[in-house]
Amino acid sequence: MAEARAAIRRGEWTTHTSGLARDHVQGNVVILPQALAGDFLRYCQRNLKPCPVLAVSEPGVPGLPALGADIDIRTDVPRYRVWRRGELVDEPTDIATHWREDLVTFVIGCSFSFEQALLDAGLAMRHIDQNRNVAMYRTSIPTAPAGPFHGPLVVSMRPLRAAAAIRAIQVTSRFPDVHGAPVHLGDPALIGIRDLGRPDYGDAVDVMPDELPVFWACGVTPQAAIAQARPDFCITHAPGSMLITDLLNHQLASF
Amino acid sequence: MAEARAAIRRGEWTTHTSGLARDHVQGNVVILPQALAGDFLRYCQRNLKPCPVLAVSEPGVPGLPALGADIDIRTDVPRYRVWRRGELVDEPTDIATHWREDLVTFVIGCSFSFEQALLDAGLAMRHIDQNRNVAMYRTSIPTAPAGPFHGPLVVSMRPLRAAAAIRAIQVTSRFPDVHGAPVHLGDPALIGIRDLGRPDYGDAVDVMPDELPVFWACGVTPQAAIAQARPDFCITHAPGSMLITDLLNHQLASF
Repeated sequence: MAEARAAIRRGEWTTHTSGLARDHVQGNVVILPQALAGDFLRYCQRNLKPCPVLAVSEPGVPGLPALGADIDIRTDVPRYRVWRRGELVDEPTDIATHWREDLVTFVIGCSFSFEQALLDAGLAMRHIDQNRNVAMYRTSIPTAPAGPFHGPLVVSMRPLRAAAAIRAIQVTSRFPDVHGAPVHLGDPALIGIRDLGRPDYGDAVDVMPDELPVFWACGVTPQAAIAQARPDFCITHAPGSMLITDLLNHQLASF
Repeated sequence: MAEARAAIRRGEWTTHTSGLARDHVQGNVVILPQALAGDFLRYCQRNLKPCPVLAVSEPGVPGLPALGADIDIRTDVPRYRVWRRGELVDEPTDIATHWREDLVTFVIGCSFSFEQALLDAGLAMRHIDQNRNVAMYRTSIPTAPAGPFHGPLVVSMRPLRAAAAIRAIQVTSRFPDVHGAPVHLGDPALIGIRDLGRPDYGDAVDVMPDELPVFWACGVTPQAAIAQARPDFCITHAPGSMLITDLLNHQLASF
């Protein structure tokens, strides 16, 4: 873990972190001006399943001591995205030049944590077997708005046979801080998904005739809400390039 | 509970026990000659999901102190079925005249316990709303045989919308001693059920277009195995007319 974070900090690892420091919790990153931080935290609190907040920084402070003594959010994400009024303006590997004294960092739980638990339980995941990003979809389920933040619930989908789906519900229920149990399974149309073969984010994977698509609330949901809110300034991680924390995935298990 | 059991003992309550003493664990009853008891217990041990044994009596002893200090299995079931070589020969309200010194009583967990937990969790069940017996089906899933006991897994089915099905999996996972989590959901054909409208036991209920059929291992499974084994002598409860125990349903919750 320390090695992985050091390589990222030195700018030597600039891509996705799937499979890096497998036992450690990784997080989605959202960095917003303090003026919007209150609304955003309220948005997360009202939409806990897609937006489980693992830590919030002090304004202007690049450390996140709850997630790791030495974390510096300006250097410890492999690749960032810098947004102005909803437009992507930069994709740097550190944000030293973008840093401001009014910035507040949010770290939000990520499905990598429960995927490790699913693998440990002997459940295969198609997107991992096929070395693809997980398939993600905007749904017809609205999130609860707060201030300028609103938008659809975004879900990730993993196809599983029924017995594996039941086991996956049990396993992921133990991880309420990283999206927890699925929000839906079976007919995608019931949550407004027209075509499983055309995800809104990530890569499509095959769903076999004896499988059910199983849908979990996804940490892309807050990014979709930010895209709707078009804040003057915002920094996020690049998709898949997460913050690696000191926390261990099993520490997030509820029992 | 004490009142309900006393009324049953006096022969004043001779029908199904659904809704009686709601907070108390009810059990399926199987009474076999000692010569078959070892094989039957082994059968249950190998098929824990459909056959969770709550208690086994001493041979010839009508008490079951683990389930209630004053239980007398000869009088405390509303209606019995007496079987000889697999043929139903009597349906008495007590079995004093059938009692033998070599009989061993098995009490097996029952879905009434988890149904109460599902109701407490705010989940409606169609068969209860429609005042019917739950729909039960023989599946293509074989049980693990032991001695003369073998046969198909029997499942009960409850139709639920996806979010309710996910919640029901969580709730029933807490009750491993009363069948636990479902064994299947979705396409009935995958477990050898051809027509949901024609259950093998109990009553059919409607499955709405936005619902999934959810299948739990069922305590009728051991009765199906006994029907296959055709023992010289056997006594069971009549379907739905269960033994009411002193145990509380919440005592069976695992966490």
